[in-house]
Amino acid sequence: MKPITLLDPSPREVKLMFQPGVLEQLQEMVELRPGPEMHTYQHPTPEEVDAILPETTYVIGQTDLPRERLETAPRLKAIINVEGNFFPNIDYEYCFSHHIHVLSVSPVFARAVAELGLGLALSLARQIPQADAAFKRGRERYGLDGNQNADLLSARSIGIVGFGDLGKALLKLLHPFGREIQVFDPWVPARAIQAAGAVPVTLEELLTTSTAIFVVAAVTSDNQGFLDRAALEMIQQDALFVLLSRAGVVDFEALADTAISGALRVATDVWPEEPFDPKHAIRRAESAVLSAHRAGALYSCFYEMGERIVEDIALMNNGLPPSSCKRAEYETVTRMRSRPVQRS
Amino acid sequence: MKPITLLDPSPREVKLMFQPGVLEQLQEMVELRPGPEMHTYQHPTPEEVDAILPETTYVIGQTDLPRERLETAPRLKAIINVEGNFFPNIDYEYCFSHHIHVLSVSPVFARAVAELGLGLALSLARQIPQADAAFKRGRERYGLDGNQNADLLSARSIGIVGFGDLGKALLKLLHPFGREIQVFDPWVPARAIQAAGAVPVTLEELLTTSTAIFVVAAVTSDNQGFLDRAALEMIQQDALFVLLSRAGVVDFEALADTAISGALRVATDVWPEEPFDPKHAIRRAESAVLSAHRAGALYSCFYEMGERIVEDIALMNNGLPPSSCKRAEYETVTRMRSRPVQRS
Amino acid sequence: MKPITLLDPSPREVKLMFQPGVLEQLQEMVELRPGPEMHTYQHPTPEEVDAILPETTYVIGQTDLPRERLETAPRLKAIINVEGNFFPNIDYEYCFSHHIHVLSVSPVFARAVAELGLGLALSLARQIPQADAAFKRGRERYGLDGNQNADLLSARSIGIVGFGDLGKALLKLLHPFGREIQVFDPWVPARAIQAAGAVPVTLEELLTTSTAIFVVAAVTSDNQGFLDRAALEMIQQDALFVLLSRAGVVDFEALADTAISGALRVATDVWPEEPFDPKHAIRRAESAVLSAHRAGALYSCFYEMGERIVEDIALMNNGLPPSSCKRAEYETVTRMRSRPVQRS
Amino acid sequence: MKPITLLDPSPREVKLMFQPGVLEQLQEMVELRPGPEMHTYQHPTPEEVDAILPETTYVIGQTDLPRERLETAPRLKAIINVEGNFFPNIDYEYCFSHHIHVLSVSPVFARAVAELGLGLALSLARQIPQADAAFKRGRERYGLDGNQNADLLSARSIGIVGFGDLGKALLKLLHPFGREIQVFDPWVPARAIQAAGAVPVTLEELLTTSTAIFVVAAVTSDNQGFLDRAALEMIQQDALFVLLSRAGVVDFEALADTAISGALRVATDVWPEEPFDPKHAIRRAESAVLSAHRAGALYSCFYEMGERIVEDIALMNNGLPPSSCKRAEYETVTRMRSRPVQRS
Repeated sequence: MKPITLLDPSPREVKLMFQPGVLEQLQEMVELRPGPEMHTYQHPTPEEVDAILPETTYVIGQTDLPRERLETAPRLKAIINVEGNFFPNIDYEYCFSHHIHVLSVSPVFARAVAELGLGLALSLARQIPQADAAFKRGRERYGLDGNQNADLLSARSIGIVGFGDLGKALLKLLHPFGREIQVFDPWVPARAIQAAGAVPVTLEELLTTSTAIFVVAAVTSDNQGFLDRAALEMIQQDALFVLLSRAGVVDFEALADTAISGALRVATDVWPEEPFDPKHAIRRAESAVLSAHRAGALYSCFYEMGERIVEDIALMNNGLPPSSCKRAEYETVTRMRSRPVQRS
Repeated sequence: MKPITLLDPSPREVKLMFQPGVLEQLQEMVELRPGPEMHTYQHPTPEEVDAILPETTYVIGQTDLPRERLETAPRLKAIINVEGNFFPNIDYEYCFSHHIHVLSVSPVFARAVAELGLGLALSLARQIPQADAAFKRGRERYGLDGNQNADLLSARSIGIVGFGDLGKALLKLLHPFGREIQVFDPWVPARAIQAAGAVPVTLEELLTTSTAIFVVAAVTSDNQGFLDRAALEMIQQDALFVLLSRAGVVDFEALADTAISGALRVATDVWPEEPFDPKHAIRRAESAVLSAHRAGALYSCFYEMGERIVEDIALMNNGLPPSSCKRAEYETVTRMRSRPVQRS
Repeated sequence: MKPITLLDPSPREVKLMFQPGVLEQLQEMVELRPGPEMHTYQHPTPEEVDAILPETTYVIGQTDLPRERLETAPRLKAIINVEGNFFPNIDYEYCFSHHIHVLSVSPVFARAVAELGLGLALSLARQIPQADAAFKRGRERYGLDGNQNADLLSARSIGIVGFGDLGKALLKLLHPFGREIQVFDPWVPARAIQAAGAVPVTLEELLTTSTAIFVVAAVTSDNQGFLDRAALEMIQQDALFVLLSRAGVVDFEALADTAISGALRVATDVWPEEPFDPKHAIRRAESAVLSAHRAGALYSCFYEMGERIVEDIALMNNGLPPSSCKRAEYETVTRMRSRPVQRS
Repeated sequence: MKPITLLDPSPREVKLMFQPGVLEQLQEMVELRPGPEMHTYQHPTPEEVDAILPETTYVIGQTDLPRERLETAPRLKAIINVEGNFFPNIDYEYCFSHHIHVLSVSPVFARAVAELGLGLALSLARQIPQADAAFKRGRERYGLDGNQNADLLSARSIGIVGFGDLGKALLKLLHPFGREIQVFDPWVPARAIQAAGAVPVTLEELLTTSTAIFVVAAVTSDNQGFLDRAALEMIQQDALFVLLSRAGVVDFEALADTAISGALRVATDVWPEEPFDPKHAIRRAESAVLSAHRAGALYSCFYEMGERIVEDIALMNNGLPPSSCKRAEYETVTRMRSRPVQRS
C-alpha cells in the first residue's frame, strides 16, 4: 500500500510543478488523491478533503488544516506548501507537537533570484538597459563617453541584508566580486556567516559602508519597513540598491524618492501592490532598473518544486527526515508575513 | 640620476592614466620628458622625440620607433603601449633582439570586460533591459507572464571562445554558474585550460554544445571572420551569444541576422564601424542587447594603466622583468590586427 | 529573571568547554545550576537534578531525562548534549512533541576531523611518517629512490562515504585536489551533493572507482559493519583508505588484513576498543598510518563547544530556533549507535 | 621535413620523461637526434653535438652551449632544460638576442611540492608521524591525552615566502585553510598577490605575524641565507616552519637549532648536503618532520615533463610562443644558484 497524498496545490498548477517523468516517480511512491481530476486548477472540495485526510500521509498544497481537521489525520507526516509562504490557515502548534513536518518549496527560487539580483546589480553599475535603449533609438555614445555613469561592481563594497536561502545563493555568485562581502542577519550567528566566507556586520555598519546593497530579507512580523527613510539616508550617495525579497521590508516611497532623485541607483523586483501604480514617478527614474516580480517565477523553478517534493517523500518513505524542501520552524512559522501568490 | 622616460601616450590623456598620487610615484622613479607640457593631448614633436631618445630608458606611448630611431636609443629597456593594441610602427624584431620589452596595459580591461560580459549574458537570459523598458512604459507583465523568454544562466552550457586575459577574467566570474565550462583557444595548451578549472574543446564542439557563448578572442591575421555564417549556424537555437572582443572575429552581418530573426539571443559591445550605421536592422532586434564599445573604457581602467606602469617600472629599475603589463611576444606581435583607438 | 540552566556536562569539564570570557557571556544570559560547585567533574546528584528541573529552560549535558522527569520541566526548551552522541537515556518522543530541542555540539569536531583526514591521506600518499622515521634513524633515501611508494593525492579519484558535517568539512578541504569528487550518502538527496560541488554515486560505484576513500559515515542501527570484507575487496589495489568516523562501520579485522597485506594503504583514527589490543598485527603494517582517536579531541574544539552553546542560547532567548549546534531529528535520533566518551 | 631536435637530457632518463604514447607524439612532430641510442643515460658526445647543432631547432637537455656553438645553430628556437635549474654553461645573452627561448620543465614540480608541503604542515600541526610511531610501538595515547601538542592549521595565520610556481600551487591548496594568507615576494607586484586572493606583506610582517610559514623561494645570487638566525628569531614560538625550496635560503644550522630546542616546529625537505650528516642533532628533534628531498621527485612529475615539452613544441611548430614550460627571463636567468641534480 502506497501512502496516500492529498494533492491540493492551487494556485499552482500540477503540470507546471511536475514534469511527466517526475509525476511518474511521485506516483510510484504515493497514491495521489483526488484522482484523475487532479491535473486542474481547482481545489478539492472541502468534502473531498475531509474524506481523504483520515488516510493521508502527505499533503501537497495550502489546504486549510485547523486542529479539527488535523485530528482526523493520524498518519500525517508532512504538509508541503508550494507557494513559498506560510499562512495562518494551519494549526502549526498541532503539527509540531505531532511530528508533522511543515515544508516549503521555497528553495527552488534561490538560484533564480540570485542570478537576477546579480544581473540587476551589473545592469545598474554599467547602465546596461539605458545603453541598450539608447542604442536601439540611435542615440548611443561610445566608449568613455557612454560610461560617464558606469563603474565596476568589484570596485564597490558589497553588502547583503538577509542570509537565508536567497542570501546564501547570492553570496556564491558574488564571491568573485569581492573578498570582504558584508552580511547582516539577526537570525544567523556570526559563525555561520564567517563559515560561508563573508563578514558579519550590524545593519548600520552595512548601510553606512556598503556601496552595493542587496536586500533579500524575508518579511516577518518583526521587520516590516525596517529599511525606513532614516535607514536609506544612511547609505552612501550613488550606491547600488537591489531589492529582491519583498517590498514590505522597505519604506517603498522613501526608496522611490532615492531612485527619482538619483541619490541611489535602485533596482527593484518587488512592489507594494501588483500591478503597480501606472503613474508612479519611479517609472521615470532614469538610472533605476525595474522588474515586475520576475526574480523567481521561471519555469525551471516550478519544475524543481516537483523534484524536491519527490526527493523529500523518498526520504520520508524511508523513515528519514526531509531535507530538500525548507522546514518551517516552530518558533518562527507564525511570524512570516507574506502575501499569497495570485496565480501560477 | 633617474632613468629618462619619454611620455607620449596620445590619444590617451596623461591625467586620465595617472592619478595624482600615482604620477608622483612615477616621478620619484623616472624623469619624464618632455617636461611640464606633458599634461596635454599633444604628441611630442618628432624633433623632441629624436632629441630625447638617446637618453631614454622607457617609452610610454605609441611613438613611431623604426629601426633608425631605435638605434639611437641604446638604453631603452621597455616600450609601454597604452592603447591595448600593437601597431606596425615599431621595429619589433629590433626590440626583441635588443632586450627591449614591448608592453601593453591591456590587462587593465580584463575585469571590466568580464563584468560587462556577465551582465550582458544575464540581461539576455532574463531580458532585463526589455523588462525595464516595458515597466518604464507602463507595460510590464508580472511573474511567469513576464518570464516567457527568461531562464537561468546556470541551466545553460557555457562556452568561452578565447582564453587570454579576457577569457581568464570571465571564467572567474562564471565559475559559480557551471562546473563544466568549455573553452576554445588554439594558442593555449589543454593543460592550462584544465588547470583553470575549465574543459578544453574544439571550436566545433563548443559551437554545437554550448548554449551561452562568450567571444573574447583577439583579432589576428589568422582568425578574421572565423565565426562566419556557417559557424553561427552550428549554434543551437535560442543560445546566448555575447560578443566582447572585436567585431572582426565574426561575420557581423550574419550575426545581426541571427539576432534579428531571433535564432540567437545576441549581445554585442563591438561594431564593424563606430559610430555604427544608424539605420541598421539590428537596432530593432527585440531580444538583443546592444552596447556601444563600453566594456573596457571605465575611468578605473584608465587609472589602473598608470598603476601597472608604475609597478613594472619599479621592477625594471630593480633589474627584474616586468610582469604587471602584458608582454608582447616575438612570434605574435605582428599578427595582431586591431584598429587604433580614436580618443581617450 | 534569567532562564535557569542545568549544567551537567560530565564527562566533559566545564572549564574545558567554557573559556573565561565565554562563561561570562553564558552567565549574562542564563542562571547556572547547581551554583559554584559546577566547575567540577561531578554530576549533580539525582536529588539536585530533580530539584532544579521544574524551573529549568536549558539542560547542558547528558542528564537522564525519562518521561517522568521531563513532565516536571514545563519550561524546558533545549537539551544540549556535549558528548557528540545521543544516548537512550532521554524520552526523545516526549521532547519532540513538546517543542524541546535536542542539540549536540558535534559540529565543533568537523573542521578538526577534516584536517586530520587530509593530513592522513597526504601522509599515506607520500609516506610522510615512514620517511620521517627512516630519516630519524639515519636510513633515509633521497629523491626518486625515496618515492617508490609515493604519488599525488590529486592524481587519485577521491570518494567520501558519508555527507554529514564531517563529509562537508572534508569536501571543502579536498576541492583543490579534484574536480570530480564522489560522495555516497543514502540520507542525502543527490541535489545537495551536487550543490556542494561533488558527484553523488552509489556505494558500489564509489568503492570500485575511487582510489582515495574517506569514511566519515556515522554508525547507526542500519549501517553497522556495512563496509564488510566483500565491500573492501571491491576497492582497487593500493587505494588510500582513511577511516575517521567510527570503527563500527567497517569489518575492522578485514580492514586490518588489507593494511597488513598492503592491498590498501590504510589510515585509521578509530578502533573497535580503546585502548586497542597491544599485540594486534596492524601495528606492524608498514604502509599504514595509525592515530589514536585524535581527530576531534583538540582543545580548540572543546572551547568551540561553549561558544556554540552561547550562540544558540542567545537565539533561543530571542525566540528563535537554535542553529549553531546540530539538532537531533525525530526520525533518526534513536538510530544512532555511538559509544559514550570515557573522559574529557 | 620535421624539425631536428637534439635530445640530451642526462642526468634525466628519456624513458622516465617520455611515456610511450608521449614519445610517439614527440616523434610525430620532430626528428630526434642522436637516433636509436637515445634511450640511455649517456650524453651525446661533443662531436655528435657539434654535428647535430647546425640543423637543430630544439635542444632538450642541459648541453653546453657557449656562443661558438650557438653561432653554428641558426635554426635554434628553444633550449629546454629538464633539470629545473639554469646553469652558466649557456650564453644566455646570445639566446635572448637571437629569439631562442630558454625553457625549464620546473612547473611539473609545483603540484607535488605543494601537496607535500601541506602534508608536512598538517603532520606538524597534528604530530601525525609522532603519533603513528608511538602507536606502532604500542605507546599511543588516546584523544585529548594524545593531542597535547596538536592544533588546527586553519586556526593559525598562514604565510608563504616566495610566489613563483610553487607558491601559487601551495596557495591553491591552502585557500580553504584561511582567508588572509600572507605572501612575501619582492619580485611580484602586490597586485598579482591580491589577484590570487592573498595579502602581500613585507618579510618582517610575515615572520612576526604568521604562525604557519611555508618557504618556497628560489635561491638566487641575491637571497642566499636571507632567512638567517635573526630572521628566524622573529618568528613566534611554536610556529610551523615548512622548508620546501632550497636549504640555501636559510641559515640551516640556525633552523636546526630551533627544531632541536622546540622553538619552532620544523619540517624540511631540503638539506645543505645530500646525503645529510648522519650524526646531525636535527635527526633527534622530536617534534620535527624530516623528508629526504622527496617533494618533487615523483614519477608523475617526470612523465609530465615529456607532456609539457610536447605541448610547447606543438605551439612553436605552429609559430606560437611556448607556454607550458617556464621561460627563463633575460634579467634573472644568471642570478639563479641551484645545484645540479645528481641523478634521475
